[in-house]
Amino acid sequence: MHQLIEQVIIPSFANETLNTRQDAAVIEINNQRLAFTTDSFVVHPLFFPGGDIGSLAVNGTVNDLAMVGAQPLYLSVSFILEEGLSLDIFQAIVSSMKEAAQQTKVEIITGDTKVVNHGKGDSIFINTTGIGIIKHSQTITPKQVQVGDVILLNGDLGRHGIAILAVREGLEFETTITSDSMPLAEMVLALIEAGIQIRCLRDLTRGGLASALNEIALVAGVEITIAEANIPVQSEVQGACELLGFDPLYVANEGRFIAFIPEQDAERALAVLHSFQAKNKDFNGNHENPCIIGQVTKNSTGLVKIRNKIGTHRIVDMLSGEQLPRIC
Amino acid sequence: MHQLIEQVIIPSFANETLNTRQDAAVIEINNQRLAFTTDSFVVHPLFFPGGDIGSLAVNGTVNDLAMVGAQPLYLSVSFILEEGLSLDIFQAIVSSMKEAAQQTKVEIITGDTKVVNHGKGDSIFINTTGIGIIKHSQTITPKQVQVGDVILLNGDLGRHGIAILAVREGLEFETTITSDSMPLAEMVLALIEAGIQIRCLRDLTRGGLASALNEIALVAGVEITIAEANIPVQSEVQGACELLGFDPLYVANEGRFIAFIPEQDAERALAVLHSFQAKNKDFNGNHENPCIIGQVTKNSTGLVKIRNKIGTHRIVDMLSGEQLPRIC
Repeated sequence: MHQLIEQVIIPSFANETLNTRQDAAVIEINNQRLAFTTDSFVVHPLFFPGGDIGSLAVNGTVNDLAMVGAQPLYLSVSFILEEGLSLDIFQAIVSSMKEAAQQTKVEIITGDTKVVNHGKGDSIFINTTGIGIIKHSQTITPKQVQVGDVILLNGDLGRHGIAILAVREGLEFETTITSDSMPLAEMVLALIEAGIQIRCLRDLTRGGLASALNEIALVAGVEITIAEANIPVQSEVQGACELLGFDPLYVANEGRFIAFIPEQDAERALAVLHSFQAKNKDFNGNHENPCIIGQVTKNSTGLVKIRNKIGTHRIVDMLSGEQLPRIC
Repeated sequence: MHQLIEQVIIPSFANETLNTRQDAAVIEINNQRLAFTTDSFVVHPLFFPGGDIGSLAVNGTVNDLAMVGAQPLYLSVSFILEEGLSLDIFQAIVSSMKEAAQQTKVEIITGDTKVVNHGKGDSIFINTTGIGIIKHSQTITPKQVQVGDVILLNGDLGRHGIAILAVREGLEFETTITSDSMPLAEMVLALIEAGIQIRCLRDLTRGGLASALNEIALVAGVEITIAEANIPVQSEVQGACELLGFDPLYVANEGRFIAFIPEQDAERALAVLHSFQAKNKDFNGNHENPCIIGQVTKNSTGLVKIRNKIGTHRIVDMLSGEQLPRIC
């Protein structure tokens, strides 16, 4: 798929905005910067601990808008339904979307529904496309990243991917692992409102933290060093990863982001995120655990290193090979 | 599907903008009116005489923006690909999208690609979502329609639906029936630029002319009378409809629209559309044939009548029963 995008899609549609490869495109209409982003959701199964395709479809697009510093305003929703989908399931998904939209104060203002024959779809696919408004003057892109910037992470890693996989494979753990799916816009906007200078934002979806860091290091032309000891991973997730042969650094999240900020803003930024902790509890009552996980260490052609718990370093590569399909 | 939309989707997401049920939502950001619309395309077959899923996905969304009088600016594109889709087919579809986007001067600025397992999709589904800008001060909605308004139609009816059906069913006619798929924005904007007052616009997609007229008559609270003799239908399309038991009034088009305008603007509006005729030739070299097909005859609770060629009237109902599936 990466190949498809690089070899067919980007060369065909090439333009300045698309070429930035940000989570959302930033356009200017009448001197007002707007953000515009789209995602289709094909997650399997439709319902999983901590969420469902409906809430995921709202949160995912809202989060892509937030990652360029936009306040999400409007969503379109388009359904592709497979003949035979039960009305109860559809109703439950629509209710979940409604609730997620209310939580993030985004309005669903236009939509479309198509039905395909039985066997030509998979119950339901949902596309959401969002428009957000950028009200501040900051420019948030990987190109702004500078040596010395610290990297803020808003919580523990790996729960969404492992939650999906556990349901799909019928794995049982002592405690149910819940997806971290949640909206991120409010936290990002609070950081901006507090006067934190945000150089770059990225949500840690497909490919996880490792892929996000590698992409940013490459575009910014820097070397990034993160500390394994600082990266929160729930013990159940760590255990499941070991069992299944996954590295939590590469597992998809749906409510996690990193922010590159100047070192002097680190304490204030952490305080802002901590103020959301009481609110951002998951189904197991766990709070988020925002933390500083690393720093931009020098100019380079793009390299990500991790310092492990005994003090040695290893390189964190882009993921090669197959990722988990249909996790969002 | 009509039931799904009315009973599940609209009540759940209810808000003022969605409730207007226009082809595109109109929003205001910083005193600038913008149009926003989404469509997923699941047409089968992917390629048909006169177009393919790629050009259809661009034209369809561009046309929905045009139907609220907007100039289309930006599109997002999201692909759902079934495992095993050939790269050649994908490349051909992407090229067709690129060409259609260039023709309508719309930029594809953000996108997404998902892959589903073999048997869980149907080669390719495409969502396009568009943003347009409304640069004039006209308000174009069914509520503006008044008694005395005439109804302008930009060309002959029924070709898209019959072209799709012919390929699907392996029907052969003396001349190949080609889809009328084409972008409509330039024509609509030319009408506005010429100072024509446009009360209401509607493209004649699913449900065809009959459904569009019924919806407008109902919202506007008027009776509409159209003249059968004035409605252009190609003889091959008429023949195919008779053979297959379809009424061309209900067959889907992808490059046809109606405009409700004051009677005194009729001649000028026709002249504007005629100026596009040389350009808007289809694959068979046929020109479009813009015409006045009827008039708003009185206030009513919503009724559409057709005067047939021998002078008697019959009522044109909403389509009950099944429509052709997957025509767009």
